[in-house]
Amino acid sequence: MLTYDFIETTGTPLYEQLYRKIRDDITAGVIAAGTRLPSKRTFAKHLGISTITVENAYAQLLMEGYIVSCPRKGYYAESLSEMPEKNADRADRSHKEPKRQKKETAPEYFADFAAGQNSFDSFPFTTWARLFRDVLSSRQKDLMTKPPQGGVWELRAALADYLRDFRGLESEPEQIIVGAGTEYLYGLLVQLLGFDRIYACEDPGYRKAADIFEAYRVECRRISLDENGICMGDLEQSGADVVHVTPSHHFPTGITMPAGRRYELLSWAAARPGRYIIEDDYDSELRMSGKPLPSLFGMDSGERTIYMNTFTKTLSSTIRVSYMILPPQLLTRFETAMGFYSCTVPTFEQYTLARFIRDGYFEKHINRVRNASRKKQDKLLTAIRKSSLGPLVSISGENAGLHFLMTIDYKGTKQEFIERCAKEGIHLVGLQSYEHVPRPEHANVFVISYASIPEERFDEAAERLFRAAAAL
Amino acid sequence: MLTYDFIETTGTPLYEQLYRKIRDDITAGVIAAGTRLPSKRTFAKHLGISTITVENAYAQLLMEGYIVSCPRKGYYAESLSEMPEKNADRADRSHKEPKRQKKETAPEYFADFAAGQNSFDSFPFTTWARLFRDVLSSRQKDLMTKPPQGGVWELRAALADYLRDFRGLESEPEQIIVGAGTEYLYGLLVQLLGFDRIYACEDPGYRKAADIFEAYRVECRRISLDENGICMGDLEQSGADVVHVTPSHHFPTGITMPAGRRYELLSWAAARPGRYIIEDDYDSELRMSGKPLPSLFGMDSGERTIYMNTFTKTLSSTIRVSYMILPPQLLTRFETAMGFYSCTVPTFEQYTLARFIRDGYFEKHINRVRNASRKKQDKLLTAIRKSSLGPLVSISGENAGLHFLMTIDYKGTKQEFIERCAKEGIHLVGLQSYEHVPRPEHANVFVISYASIPEERFDEAAERLFRAAAAL
Repeated sequence: MLTYDFIETTGTPLYEQLYRKIRDDITAGVIAAGTRLPSKRTFAKHLGISTITVENAYAQLLMEGYIVSCPRKGYYAESLSEMPEKNADRADRSHKEPKRQKKETAPEYFADFAAGQNSFDSFPFTTWARLFRDVLSSRQKDLMTKPPQGGVWELRAALADYLRDFRGLESEPEQIIVGAGTEYLYGLLVQLLGFDRIYACEDPGYRKAADIFEAYRVECRRISLDENGICMGDLEQSGADVVHVTPSHHFPTGITMPAGRRYELLSWAAARPGRYIIEDDYDSELRMSGKPLPSLFGMDSGERTIYMNTFTKTLSSTIRVSYMILPPQLLTRFETAMGFYSCTVPTFEQYTLARFIRDGYFEKHINRVRNASRKKQDKLLTAIRKSSLGPLVSISGENAGLHFLMTIDYKGTKQEFIERCAKEGIHLVGLQSYEHVPRPEHANVFVISYASIPEERFDEAAERLFRAAAAL
Repeated sequence: MLTYDFIETTGTPLYEQLYRKIRDDITAGVIAAGTRLPSKRTFAKHLGISTITVENAYAQLLMEGYIVSCPRKGYYAESLSEMPEKNADRADRSHKEPKRQKKETAPEYFADFAAGQNSFDSFPFTTWARLFRDVLSSRQKDLMTKPPQGGVWELRAALADYLRDFRGLESEPEQIIVGAGTEYLYGLLVQLLGFDRIYACEDPGYRKAADIFEAYRVECRRISLDENGICMGDLEQSGADVVHVTPSHHFPTGITMPAGRRYELLSWAAARPGRYIIEDDYDSELRMSGKPLPSLFGMDSGERTIYMNTFTKTLSSTIRVSYMILPPQLLTRFETAMGFYSCTVPTFEQYTLARFIRDGYFEKHINRVRNASRKKQDKLLTAIRKSSLGPLVSISGENAGLHFLMTIDYKGTKQEFIERCAKEGIHLVGLQSYEHVPRPEHANVFVISYASIPEERFDEAAERLFRAAAAL
């Protein structure tokens, strides 16, 4: 059996010493691919260490893909050719998902313009760590106390004040329902508004809304857009009761719905009982120029608008905090019919976020992210304009959020172009991907998300895009 | 206008100084109830401090109920008689929910036997804080990276190993779907299994499962129990496709389903395509005596069982982490039809919990909680037996989890008894509350949850229960 010696005095935990030794032996071929490792208990006995130590070492090896686990059989050394690169960043996802998962790991692009993700270094780790520590030491009883179903009161009060001051939106904390992401809140709304209602979405638009309506097996109509946003005639004709819109900054075209269309939409809602508007204000904080228009929620004296917002764009999608504001009659219905639901966000995040907002950090953070994004976007646009790609493209929707539209003049099919780009290490997603029925006139329009791409790659990325376009 | 001086050198933040001054003035009546406070901007200018400082002070006063906010009007001093007690624990919920919420705050009981909550001091705050800090400093990129929809791989790998070692349950990490609470996972299952299926629940049983099936507007049949758990004849006759069961420890009666009934249930599932069992193993870790039976999931060669578990009982409900294990064909369907859903648990909790399990803390914690619960339950049972209440009660279901059943011999109606108890400061919930149609023979059976009640109150609580029973 494999035998290793351990150095008790290094300060390196035993399990880590064992993990390293086995890893090195697998890498060096001392343990051949396919070799069955000793069972945890036997191995522990043999080495004179505890089972949990072996277990931890195996867990680490498993996570990093050096060994695989076969149910009821044991652990086997992975074959080297199938192994992720040894020197790859440990944080790399492909490294944590061993091959036995049998899933395609995402290819690594030089520049992934399709990744909606924020840049990881914009998250305020230091402040967050400090506030979290404070909360953890001073609010233990609160952290362990089941919050009201709408969420921790402090967070909702902080949100109401924040929305009043920075968005001009008046609401009471009790109207605010905090939930684990907008996706979750859409689902709650279908349960609240009814499975027999007809729902409508913008087309093109945020795909998840339509996906979720369909997962709930409710009727979902797609409504086209004109230059002012959702087409009122189509909406009227669709027979819809509930419509999902992104009036501050349409996703993905960037259209801001003007006041006139907003009033038309509110009139539509007021015209028949049971009509509601879901106003998804997902990135209004990151608007880069001009003052945002008042929210539909704030303009709506008829109380038919449900306001929705998220911390996905402003903090991180991985924090899973979104919220919605219910008009009074829906709030009553929610509390009566769905009062058994628990709030889905951990109290830990809720208290920390409440402090983060109340102490003014959120405002500062948004300003920082907005400024950084503006600079980053300017750099990307400059890089594109002065590159060989410049004459082949036109840009729109660049006044808001972390993406814009780019029309690229290329020959050949969209599929061919996207494949050429992929060969150049560039990942693109077309506007058509956000359309229920792709419109032929949008075949060469692409949604460019740049937040996750390092600035120093912009020049090279533009040249690669040019090469892809020119090669066809 | 109100004028205050500030001491810049105390180290106490300005906003806190201001908050204290206003609070003291309201308490002392210097600022009379109903007085409108100056607007934030005016007040800030007047005092020569920043608006955000006033804002923070107001937010604090608002949260603690010293002032109320009237939309579009401003902030008003709260009337003292309506104010929560000045010396009340700040962590007290009633303190954070000002009167304007217009909701009943829960009355404070001497002993609340109806509260399902864990004792707040059992959470491993110190270890959790340390692991969280580690994760926050060493895994920043991972924390900001969107995890697979089933959750962070490390957590799922840790769970698979944990279940193999401590529950004898074989699963692959990719089968494990992590979600923000069991309630959320029930909802996912309805979307996965279908809205046209007939669902069945145990009666009496865990009310939330039925509540959620009804919120999703799917047919939900109630199946009665015999001494071995769910009645197979009734299940067969119900026409159900999917059944929710708690075989390890039936909620709330404490029945453990014996092997024979388990095989009958598995045969039922295997007999017709599309039949599934949801095995809710919500507190199997806390079983107090005897070895738990193998899980249905592990016994099921037909792959018709969905295993579900949660950290609600073992860590805290406020952490919102549960998981389910899907059999292979459902996993494929889930990934295909519902692949657009994001994981609902923050990466922060997922990485911390993965470390907590992998490093062996979870096992130790469970042992600690189980031992503490056993001791606590013993003390409560002893207190009851030697009190005047002793001769009036019988106990069952005491071998598992954090509750048991107590039959109390009293005269009068259940309602009268519960009201008498409430007057004595005791909150009780009847077994009938978990029955769809309350069974008359259960009128004097109560579900006794004791985890949140301090031990030193047990003797007195038993005497108070006796007084309530004797008074009728």
